[in-house]
Amino acid sequence: MRPFEEDLKTLNEALLEMGGLVAQSVHRSVQSLVEKNEDYASQVLRDEARIDQLEIQIDDLVGSIIARENPVAGDMRFVVVAIKINTDLERMGDMAVGIVERSLATMRQPQIPLVSGFTEMGNLVESMVLQSLDAFVKRDAQLARGILKSDDAVDALRNKITRQMIELMKKDPVAVESALDYVLIARRLERIADHATNIAEDVIFMVKGVDVRHRNERSLD
Amino acid sequence: MRPFEEDLKTLNEALLEMGGLVAQSVHRSVQSLVEKNEDYASQVLRDEARIDQLEIQIDDLVGSIIARENPVAGDMRFVVVAIKINTDLERMGDMAVGIVERSLATMRQPQIPLVSGFTEMGNLVESMVLQSLDAFVKRDAQLARGILKSDDAVDALRNKITRQMIELMKKDPVAVESALDYVLIARRLERIADHATNIAEDVIFMVKGVDVRHRNERSLD
Repeated sequence: MRPFEEDLKTLNEALLEMGGLVAQSVHRSVQSLVEKNEDYASQVLRDEARIDQLEIQIDDLVGSIIARENPVAGDMRFVVVAIKINTDLERMGDMAVGIVERSLATMRQPQIPLVSGFTEMGNLVESMVLQSLDAFVKRDAQLARGILKSDDAVDALRNKITRQMIELMKKDPVAVESALDYVLIARRLERIADHATNIAEDVIFMVKGVDVRHRNERSLD
Repeated sequence: MRPFEEDLKTLNEALLEMGGLVAQSVHRSVQSLVEKNEDYASQVLRDEARIDQLEIQIDDLVGSIIARENPVAGDMRFVVVAIKINTDLERMGDMAVGIVERSLATMRQPQIPLVSGFTEMGNLVESMVLQSLDAFVKRDAQLARGILKSDDAVDALRNKITRQMIELMKKDPVAVESALDYVLIARRLERIADHATNIAEDVIFMVKGVDVRHRNERSLD
């Protein structure tokens, strides 16, 4: 294995560890809301420190790879995309913490009727996070394209939740605070999906650029 | 001038052009809301394409600088931060577009009493965007620290607007949609300020080699 390939293996592993942690935090943040479970919330708050640590480690790793290997063309693009993905993952972690903060707030406010759509939205967003990382590591533009489609489904779920909450706020002034928290949580999930979509777009750009240079080996779709 | 310094000059100019456009879009998005002005809104939507174009140009520029110059240590850090700033600026542009979309929506909904705080918040966020770029170009950690302080003021304004809107929604069901739009616009301004804060933190890291991204005590010197 070339030293550069070994470096990339280390980089991929670190990004996958971070992605796994972030996906888990997304899952737990939604479960904390749906099940009114404070333990899940604490786990998300606890894991944020590890995610932040990984962000710094990955930036350092990328910096030393560039300095040591002086990658060109396709390899360089891979490294630039890694920096962007690292930032996206860390911000997703922040969003999961934001969800947990609102979820804890709703537990202390007047309870409102069950809001449908969060479990589905949470599962979808979690799988987008995992798939975007998978698409990056495998340099798989087709997988990345699938994520762009999921993003539309997430937007539809966010709209559905928002409409439910607007109706509730109009009917019941006591529910306003909680309903607003639910709207904001749906927005944060949507933002996590947006970050996964950003990663997918970067992967497509990265792979397409590679395809242009190696026209005969791979087909542009 | 070393070739690397000339490259950095070109990179700085491109980032400043992009930052100027983004700051202008932030300003116009808030003015479109406060003055119910559709022309400002159209200008923001028009300039988004140019901002997106600049993002791609800057990524390409950074890629070719790294490939050609193989920068080390401090120079390398500058280049990595440039990639991050580029991403932050593009996302701020997206947020300005999001504000404009909600601003246009509020023009078509039942009018609600004047909401105070938006002009102040908009001016503060606009100046954070410009100052964060200025801090990067001048490698000025002290200027960057000032931005971290402004971020707290932005959060306070967002809370003030949200509280006003919650009271309004409780009192007047007809106002719910518009009040919610105002809450969401305040959140988007806050997100733009968060991106400026991210840039400021990256600048401090770049200049001092101290990572303030995930520290609560923001008074390191």
